[in-house]
Amino acid sequence: MDDQDIKLSVHLSLPEWMSGFVSDLKESYPSDEDKMRMVLDLAIRNVEESTGGPFGAAIFDTQSHQVISLGVNRVVPLNNSTAHAEMMAFMLAQQRLQRFRLDTEDHDFVLVTSAQPCAMCYGACPWAGINRVVIGARREDVESLTEFDEGPMPADWIHGLKERGIAVSQDVLRQESRDVFNLYTNKKGTQY
Amino acid sequence: MDDQDIKLSVHLSLPEWMSGFVSDLKESYPSDEDKMRMVLDLAIRNVEESTGGPFGAAIFDTQSHQVISLGVNRVVPLNNSTAHAEMMAFMLAQQRLQRFRLDTEDHDFVLVTSAQPCAMCYGACPWAGINRVVIGARREDVESLTEFDEGPMPADWIHGLKERGIAVSQDVLRQESRDVFNLYTNKKGTQY
Repeated sequence: MDDQDIKLSVHLSLPEWMSGFVSDLKESYPSDEDKMRMVLDLAIRNVEESTGGPFGAAIFDTQSHQVISLGVNRVVPLNNSTAHAEMMAFMLAQQRLQRFRLDTEDHDFVLVTSAQPCAMCYGACPWAGINRVVIGARREDVESLTEFDEGPMPADWIHGLKERGIAVSQDVLRQESRDVFNLYTNKKGTQY
Repeated sequence: MDDQDIKLSVHLSLPEWMSGFVSDLKESYPSDEDKMRMVLDLAIRNVEESTGGPFGAAIFDTQSHQVISLGVNRVVPLNNSTAHAEMMAFMLAQQRLQRFRLDTEDHDFVLVTSAQPCAMCYGACPWAGINRVVIGARREDVESLTEFDEGPMPADWIHGLKERGIAVSQDVLRQESRDVFNLYTNKKGTQY
């Protein structure tokens, strides 16, 4: 391999169908269940369109309940092991708001994710500037219903976020989140 | 904020000066110290040019000792909390080799990083397809010499990698790695 091949930039994108999805978004998503239902629609659509793994995420403004950014798993299509739904949502929210930490004195943000974040996405939470994480499926759902590994996490992972000012809510539409994995497995998607 | 503002793609780039750095790379870097010295040059240059935080990383082919990709911390310039040196190196290596896991039956890869990976970069290691991590400064060096937080890690983080087939070597040019933090602090860089 030639040194000239060394890459100096990379482009990460959400699927083409996302433009239509964005046009159909509601003005706001008041409850945790409202937020999660939209995120699960993202995950389901990602499976149906074969544009990545069975995971969706979004960042919302805590006060207005408006969507700041969306994310779906893009690992296989983009050849990028870091392109998890949560990471896409973090990067796209920060790009939109033009700051590397989302929260300010006046604004709080929540990450809503269809499944418990893996070790990488978990470790990314403290740097992103969110104040809360809302989770659908649990780690054991991911690992029993798919071949995905969640990675090495601290034993008390919820405490690790709490002591950095991030609250965690689990089991929001958990069964519906599990259903997305079954949909994916039935479709025999690439599991890595 | 209007839904039309929702971003669907993001571009991550290394600094302009990196092109010249790439031209000057050697054919190969046989020892761990050779590899680390080049990575520390990256970190130092990133501080001197004010193009990001005091961290550098690179992926090498374990057999040929050739550079596959480079990375420096780009969090502040890119407004992207995920743009750590290790993440840049992972993404750029995967883009070059056009696969989301680097390792194959015939090829192993090593991540060389100027400091112990934070919780996010740590959690990213198992998905990237590397077989070894070579580390300069320790967590306590980062946290005592800078205001950077390394995040919530498993108590036995080395074991978490080992059981996923990734070996860890620490303290390679540790003092030289610590010196980069002092350079950064003296330059009063943005610490986040």
